[in-house]
Amino acid sequence: MYLTEYINGHVHLEESDMCESDGKLFLNEAFSVIMEEILHKGTDSKEKVCEWKDPDQLRALLDLDLREHGESHEQLLQRVQDVARYSVKTCHPRFFNQLFAGVDYHALTGRLLTETLNTSQYTYEVAPVFVLMEEEVLRKLRSLVGWSEGDGIFCPGGSMSNMYAMNIARYWAFPQVKTQGLWATPRMAIFTSQQSHYSMKKAAAFLGIGTDNIFIVQADESGSMIPEDLEAKIMQAKSKDAVPFFVNATAGTTVQGAFDPLNHIADISERNGMSICMPLGEEACCFPKNTNICANATYLFQQDKFYDTSLDTGDKSIQCGRKVDCLKLWLMWKAIGTHGLSERVDKAFALARYLVEEMEKRENFKLVCKGHFVNVCFWFIPPSLRGKENSPDYQERLSKVAPVIKERMMKRGTMMVGYQPMDGHVNFFRMVVVSPQLTTKDMDFFLDEIEKLGKDL
Amino acid sequence: MYLTEYINGHVHLEESDMCESDGKLFLNEAFSVIMEEILHKGTDSKEKVCEWKDPDQLRALLDLDLREHGESHEQLLQRVQDVARYSVKTCHPRFFNQLFAGVDYHALTGRLLTETLNTSQYTYEVAPVFVLMEEEVLRKLRSLVGWSEGDGIFCPGGSMSNMYAMNIARYWAFPQVKTQGLWATPRMAIFTSQQSHYSMKKAAAFLGIGTDNIFIVQADESGSMIPEDLEAKIMQAKSKDAVPFFVNATAGTTVQGAFDPLNHIADISERNGMSICMPLGEEACCFPKNTNICANATYLFQQDKFYDTSLDTGDKSIQCGRKVDCLKLWLMWKAIGTHGLSERVDKAFALARYLVEEMEKRENFKLVCKGHFVNVCFWFIPPSLRGKENSPDYQERLSKVAPVIKERMMKRGTMMVGYQPMDGHVNFFRMVVVSPQLTTKDMDFFLDEIEKLGKDL
Repeated sequence: MYLTEYINGHVHLEESDMCESDGKLFLNEAFSVIMEEILHKGTDSKEKVCEWKDPDQLRALLDLDLREHGESHEQLLQRVQDVARYSVKTCHPRFFNQLFAGVDYHALTGRLLTETLNTSQYTYEVAPVFVLMEEEVLRKLRSLVGWSEGDGIFCPGGSMSNMYAMNIARYWAFPQVKTQGLWATPRMAIFTSQQSHYSMKKAAAFLGIGTDNIFIVQADESGSMIPEDLEAKIMQAKSKDAVPFFVNATAGTTVQGAFDPLNHIADISERNGMSICMPLGEEACCFPKNTNICANATYLFQQDKFYDTSLDTGDKSIQCGRKVDCLKLWLMWKAIGTHGLSERVDKAFALARYLVEEMEKRENFKLVCKGHFVNVCFWFIPPSLRGKENSPDYQERLSKVAPVIKERMMKRGTMMVGYQPMDGHVNFFRMVVVSPQLTTKDMDFFLDEIEKLGKDL
Repeated sequence: MYLTEYINGHVHLEESDMCESDGKLFLNEAFSVIMEEILHKGTDSKEKVCEWKDPDQLRALLDLDLREHGESHEQLLQRVQDVARYSVKTCHPRFFNQLFAGVDYHALTGRLLTETLNTSQYTYEVAPVFVLMEEEVLRKLRSLVGWSEGDGIFCPGGSMSNMYAMNIARYWAFPQVKTQGLWATPRMAIFTSQQSHYSMKKAAAFLGIGTDNIFIVQADESGSMIPEDLEAKIMQAKSKDAVPFFVNATAGTTVQGAFDPLNHIADISERNGMSICMPLGEEACCFPKNTNICANATYLFQQDKFYDTSLDTGDKSIQCGRKVDCLKLWLMWKAIGTHGLSERVDKAFALARYLVEEMEKRENFKLVCKGHFVNVCFWFIPPSLRGKENSPDYQERLSKVAPVIKERMMKRGTMMVGYQPMDGHVNFFRMVVVSPQLTTKDMDFFLDEIEKLGKDL
């Protein structure tokens, strides 16, 4: 009777509610917009990297309101145009604002394929290709860092990888934490450099350990952790009855790109009874086997399946549904090989070196430190401040230079680069050279543009 | 000199390392494969929902190994074909295996756009469109559950949403936990129904609370939490000096689709001093304002920016880089409106009801319980077991039926549906009716196919 009522209403159960061909047509047309507006114009250095609008202006332009009734094909296609137009083009050769940039067409293909297949990484039955692929990509990543065995997972970002690492170290030190919680353990101590990523604070808070139990280890001027201070901080923690269980060592700090002395830190950690995990890059985390995160959901991980259920790897994850993250990396790797990847790294280092060399030839630029990696941190010294290093308000005035230049570049849309203060250094720019599309011309443009934007300051 | 050496080597810094036009050509050709293999064949009920291969066979077919050198355009395109071919078609009208299914072309367009724009949701400067859009979508979601104010976030899945909710409830009860950790608080107690999702266990372990501090509340036969038992479990926890801080109420349990009595639970929680968070669906979590997750990273969230920095919302997240998740929902909502969304829900309910009515007409099917939602849980009773309910080995033999039928359907590739045991009930199927593409024909096919696959059992 319910069904009959329904059929007398407005929807027929004998019909699919969306015309497949309309849907495909929309997707095809939208894909053309994506190709033209993002991948063609968005990678063209003659076009803008961003189309700055104030939030109120942009709200009005986008008409974000969600209404009772749907819109027409044409209106929706215009929405796609608008989203593309007013979004930042992170694939643009002058986008230097974050630790990601550029576009790799094979990786992007992998991502579009992943999104269209729309599956979850938890069992072999729903993700046969990706369960095997993730296993292989992680094996390869472990071999790059010299591990012949172990386990791992792709996470939604580096901060989550860091949380996994901290959780695993905690379980390794005090396995009772999984069932009884932290009330059954002594107070624990985390060690991390003053230059480490802020995800350490979030992890300590989220895992119930508390940010006060992070012991901050000093870094040298280049941003690298000072091992002697690590030893001192471990002593200090022990004297307060906090048990050291986790040292976070960074290979490429967020701002300066510094490398902590990994071997030295590993020695100190082992001597103090700690284990080693390895959050790699932005998304993968490698860890020892048998870390026992699992919760054994019977509705997903039935043991009477007709295939080897050790392939149902979802229970390693703190997520249940988990997006596929291995395909983009796998397809890119297949496309250019380990050799091609290593060439990209070499090239990024060489371009960063080139940028530093060119900077040193110009009197308006002053390096914060010599770079180790692909980060180049520097102040732009505008004409009015040149030679005024000894004025009492020099630092105060210098701190205002980067925000003004940043505002101007965003409004012109010519490029994007980030700035920040750090440990007594006033605002400086952090240029990151990562996109494989970059050439020396982009480096030259970068320096010229900063000079142009700041010439009246 | 470093640069000169480099130029004398194999890579030239004056050239971008990838030919843009080759990359675009590859992407275009791969998109045609995606359209044909996934969206055309994959949604055609005459085609297979999966192409089952044993793991060893599949490993050999895929050639997953990552090598020193890259592959040709043609080989790579074949890789895309293979990934598409051997992956499960979750968009297929006979995919009933999980709590997701089908394809919405507007949502998919949003996802492809998101992936191509490749930005992170943390600041207005790199994600102007999406910061405003997320705000609007969350406001709309809150209004659906009757909240006129509040905050929220999109998370990588429902399990993470549950962890946010638990973390926020903990902070609300004991704000000192953020800095001092759980050692500065009394033991805490979590309450959740025996039918709730296994992410509760993972959350309790990950947040350092421990799975022993979860008090399991009984559910009735339909799967709904029994409020009287919640009260009893709260008393029990208090008698053990554990402070109740979190009740997990579910609207639509994982297996049976049961709804816990939300109002009744809310009353009990308030009387016992607990707050309310709202993980919604798979990805969004709504919570009260000022939950103070933030860690104040100076390199991202500079306070001297030229725009309103309250729009730099990244510090609400436990992630740093966070993918854009609002666009797919926003674009789908724009396309069909609130009205269209609600019609889809009505239709799914009506189809589930139709399925139950048809099942009741056939003697081979026995419902586990009357469904509340779009989950239909049932046993298939094969000919050899009909009328044998009183045999001593009936349950034992019945438990083996679902795994055999599942294996057969996977190998034929005709459809996919999950099974599981539960609380003294032996293996039964869980059919989930969610795809907007479904019609009564698909329901009829489902019943016929189960009968066909199990007719000799």
